Amino acid sequence: MTIPSVLPASPAPVHDELELLLRLGDDRLILGHRLSEWCGHAPILEEDIALANVALDLLGQATLLLRRAGEVEGKGRDEDALAYFRDAVDFRCCRLVELPRGDFAFTIARQFLFDAYAVVTLDAMKRSTSAELSAIAEKSLKEAKYHVRHSGEWMLKLGDGSEESHRRVQRALDDLWRFAAELFAADDVDARLAASGMGPDLPALHAQWNAIVRDVVGRATLTVPHDTPPSPHMPSGRRGMHTEHLGHLLAEMQIVARSHPGARW
Amino acid sequence: MTIPSVLPASPAPVHDELELLLRLGDDRLILGHRLSEWCGHAPILEEDIALANVALDLLGQATLLLRRAGEVEGKGRDEDALAYFRDAVDFRCCRLVELPRGDFAFTIARQFLFDAYAVVTLDAMKRSTSAELSAIAEKSLKEAKYHVRHSGEWMLKLGDGSEESHRRVQRALDDLWRFAAELFAADDVDARLAASGMGPDLPALHAQWNAIVRDVVGRATLTVPHDTPPSPHMPSGRRGMHTEHLGHLLAEMQIVARSHPGARW
Repeated sequence: MTIPSVLPASPAPVHDELELLLRLGDDRLILGHRLSEWCGHAPILEEDIALANVALDLLGQATLLLRRAGEVEGKGRDEDALAYFRDAVDFRCCRLVELPRGDFAFTIARQFLFDAYAVVTLDAMKRSTSAELSAIAEKSLKEAKYHVRHSGEWMLKLGDGSEESHRRVQRALDDLWRFAAELFAADDVDARLAASGMGPDLPALHAQWNAIVRDVVGRATLTVPHDTPPSPHMPSGRRGMHTEHLGHLLAEMQIVARSHPGARW
Repeated sequence: MTIPSVLPASPAPVHDELELLLRLGDDRLILGHRLSEWCGHAPILEEDIALANVALDLLGQATLLLRRAGEVEGKGRDEDALAYFRDAVDFRCCRLVELPRGDFAFTIARQFLFDAYAVVTLDAMKRSTSAELSAIAEKSLKEAKYHVRHSGEWMLKLGDGSEESHRRVQRALDDLWRFAAELFAADDVDARLAASGMGPDLPALHAQWNAIVRDVVGRATLTVPHDTPPSPHMPSGRRGMHTEHLGHLLAEMQIVARSHPGARW
């Protein structure tokens, strides 16, 4: 009997798979809600409708991911139980998606940074060793490609638009940059998921994301902010350390479901 | 030369056509916004998404109707100018759509009453003498048929559901009934529009609406409220007499567009 010199990838433990599904699902649930806050407030009717459509796509993706998370967990929780009956500390979204919607430029800049991240990670997860995750990634990728085109076009319009719109979107980019770093800050869970072939290899994908973002930011006549060196002490939403904003959002989002637990609507 | 014993229908004056488009467009703009307030608050993720989809359909229809209204008016106002830069007194929506969203039962009951009205009137307007309106009606009717099926199914679930849900939806129906009467209270403008073949013959369609509504309400084990006799003194949103709620909604909806008039986003 020969021992292979390179160990074969071992399957990801259930805990890691659940963690991945929650991270992916919670990002979309929370960002979908932030985006839906624009409904009725965008400065142009068509854009109001476009943003709401993106929000709906994200909420639809969140539904699939959290439903699957409930199955993997095996404790009988469905997507509604996970969305409405977890507390902030049990959420696994990144801090980028929690921030209040800000002005239109802020919303677009955050959307663009997230959409670019979604495209590169979903594209990688099409080949996930989990058939269920692979199917969700394939469906979501089609939507994400549309989203990044939409937000990317707005980056160009705002950056290369009026003096005021340029100033606003540059400020948004400066404020958001350190939060975007969290998207690619892989922890042990991410490393095991990547090694097993189930999850995306975040550090490897960072370069792709950088290429997309830097191309658009450059063409929008905007400046890429300086990278802050990553610190192991950086609080991470992936480990349940959230901004204060998540608590407020959840209070709003969960109140109806929680006031009538088990209500048969 | 012989004079026909029955006068041929005369074309509707421009003012009437504009009035019709504003009435139809404003109903959908305001109801779409009311419905979008549920985004992130419905008790079930799938229903959250379903309601937001209906809201998007309504906002899409409003865009088409208000765009056409701007063309007919001929003063260079587009759908955004009409949505964001008119005051409450210039809106032509019915009062039913202005009421705050209430609880889930209230939202569903209002939606059902409106959806049934939309289906019968859009079906009639497919044969409008205005080619543009006829095309919009045909497109919108497909959506409205889906909407009334959705809200009708919820009426059955709520009415024939738990004691609590039955009680809530009956109360909503009782509260909403007098506002629904406004939908079919035709004024001179409506009469001229019907005679010209451009607009729906509201009094004639009232029976169709009643048949749809009474069938569902009966099957939902709910009671149809008593009709209040129509009064010529009843305030009408169609003539700019709105509830106080419209002002608050517009303040919210118009703030971004108005704070940056002419901003090139």
